[in-house]
Amino acid sequence: MTVFETYRNHLSLDGLQHFISIGEGNTPLVRSNRIGIELGLSNLYFKLEHLNPSGSYKDRFASLAVSQLKAHNADVCLATSSGNTGAALAAYAAVAGIPCHIAIVDGAPIGKLRQMQEYGAKLWMVKDFGKDASKTQAVINDLENLATSCNSLVQISAFKYSPFGMQGVQTIAYEIMDQLPSVAHVFSPAGGGGLTLALTKGFRVFDEGPSIHCVQPFGNNTISGPLREGFEKAQRIESSTTQISGLQVPSVIDGDAVVRECRHTGGNGSLVNDQEVYFWQQQMITKEGIYCEPAGAVAMAGLKYALDKGEIHPNQSIVCLVTGHGFKDVKSMEKHLTNNPIGYISDIYELKKFLHEKN
Amino acid sequence: MTVFETYRNHLSLDGLQHFISIGEGNTPLVRSNRIGIELGLSNLYFKLEHLNPSGSYKDRFASLAVSQLKAHNADVCLATSSGNTGAALAAYAAVAGIPCHIAIVDGAPIGKLRQMQEYGAKLWMVKDFGKDASKTQAVINDLENLATSCNSLVQISAFKYSPFGMQGVQTIAYEIMDQLPSVAHVFSPAGGGGLTLALTKGFRVFDEGPSIHCVQPFGNNTISGPLREGFEKAQRIESSTTQISGLQVPSVIDGDAVVRECRHTGGNGSLVNDQEVYFWQQQMITKEGIYCEPAGAVAMAGLKYALDKGEIHPNQSIVCLVTGHGFKDVKSMEKHLTNNPIGYISDIYELKKFLHEKN
Repeated sequence: MTVFETYRNHLSLDGLQHFISIGEGNTPLVRSNRIGIELGLSNLYFKLEHLNPSGSYKDRFASLAVSQLKAHNADVCLATSSGNTGAALAAYAAVAGIPCHIAIVDGAPIGKLRQMQEYGAKLWMVKDFGKDASKTQAVINDLENLATSCNSLVQISAFKYSPFGMQGVQTIAYEIMDQLPSVAHVFSPAGGGGLTLALTKGFRVFDEGPSIHCVQPFGNNTISGPLREGFEKAQRIESSTTQISGLQVPSVIDGDAVVRECRHTGGNGSLVNDQEVYFWQQQMITKEGIYCEPAGAVAMAGLKYALDKGEIHPNQSIVCLVTGHGFKDVKSMEKHLTNNPIGYISDIYELKKFLHEKN
Repeated sequence: MTVFETYRNHLSLDGLQHFISIGEGNTPLVRSNRIGIELGLSNLYFKLEHLNPSGSYKDRFASLAVSQLKAHNADVCLATSSGNTGAALAAYAAVAGIPCHIAIVDGAPIGKLRQMQEYGAKLWMVKDFGKDASKTQAVINDLENLATSCNSLVQISAFKYSPFGMQGVQTIAYEIMDQLPSVAHVFSPAGGGGLTLALTKGFRVFDEGPSIHCVQPFGNNTISGPLREGFEKAQRIESSTTQISGLQVPSVIDGDAVVRECRHTGGNGSLVNDQEVYFWQQQMITKEGIYCEPAGAVAMAGLKYALDKGEIHPNQSIVCLVTGHGFKDVKSMEKHLTNNPIGYISDIYELKKFLHEKN
């Protein structure tokens, strides 16, 4: 049974019966082994969304989105992405036997695109897409028109564009409630805010859901600042200055709803700088064995921000979402390697000497 | 509850109470979406062991091995590996707070070592280790002596060396029986044979367990050939000529027991060439969305071998183990990319033209 069948009564699936499934969802919720103790938190947990089949939570979106395309006999899957959404859609479209074409932002790092190509998606790098605001909107409009002529829908992982598929992401909330009914706080990273909004929608069906906290890098402060400062709406920024891949989204997209819904749950906004994100990424890898990409450590960094402000009770049950796999962005780890070079030896005696000298 | 607690009554855990757990086990068993239909198999399944926390089934071994080290207050974790075992041990040792030192074979590809370093393990490349047979044995002996003096045990993922930890791998069998009680055949890749032997040990507790089939590349035919040809024992080979990372193990190690136990289950040996493995890797990625490394496609290639020989009934329930993540060996996929270049366009009109010309 897929997660969509398990939680079907919480979703509006328009009679969809057949789900393209490759092992998405049912991800582990693990208790912190070391970081929680170090921070004085007795109930810190991580939701390991990076262990989804294509390496991120976007599989929950892509599974539902492509299942719908398949049910409607769509000719193609059309999408925009420069990372995890594209990889997820490429995987599910391949399984569904639907050609997948993805418009990628001009200058997107090639490494992040490889996985999409390996699944067989055709990539199109569109000049000035993602760089110039009016060009970006024109590309999305053109894609939507093209989709209509191909009996399809453009897939962009945001409620604003693809609300049907985004329901899939709500299943994270249902799973957390099953795994940890006492959950009091959930920390979620946000670019355009789709994931965070999905959590608020997911937990809304429970009488006593957790507070949902929205975490962003300072360099992409479209939602978290306005949420914290009591504003009604998110804010568009001129350009994103964070280097955290996946969270560079200067437009508001789902942001207004995130501000409203997070506030309604009692959640707040956290802002973190990129260096803090890299620090917590390394902490998670070396203390929890959680091999995540930088965006996957943003929730943890945001929890630290809220802790420092005294906003979290240390005995409450806290969940940080880990969104993407460390393998997705190996470059981000290079800085951690320079302090740990390989030793070239001719004999185990040299290792023995090393160990004895250390003690 | 960890998988070791769930299946505790099947394991000999010497009273071990605390398990270092980071989300290992409980991996998805997914039904084939396309390959099964294409091959005329109505019940083909894949066990997605590559979705374990460090990206391979070795996490089941490492969790138990390091939990035991921790319970005995070992000073260090000492191991040999050039790949997935090392990554898994590095992760669990990091979580346990135990320094991890790994002897790696001379000339091992650096890419496969990075993950161990990122978890914080210290790597030692030992001259001629893995190249020269007597040097290799000497290194293992020296490590064992060093381990004794450090209140530790050398961790090598084989029953011959580390039987306690290897019990963890048996949990794959218990999970498969829970997920698919009708399972009739399980295909497993083999280097030294530890995984395959663990499956036979795991399924042994059930009255009607499946046949366990052992699959090897022709270039590392230590077990599969002897099993198929009716020999009593595995065979050492001069040197491994396969390029499939993780399966280059010319020594017998657990091989004799694999021959005996697979035969006892009614299983057979399959032999596959490297090109077939790469072919099935691509098929699994592009038709099943299963993003695996080459070794992770070896079981599927071996199933095809047995099918071609008419040894498998097409209605029986078949499970192929997917052992390691595609991210582990991105080089292996490069050959698939050349046929799928990025298109550089200035306008979605060009994509529209492309789609219309194709139809």
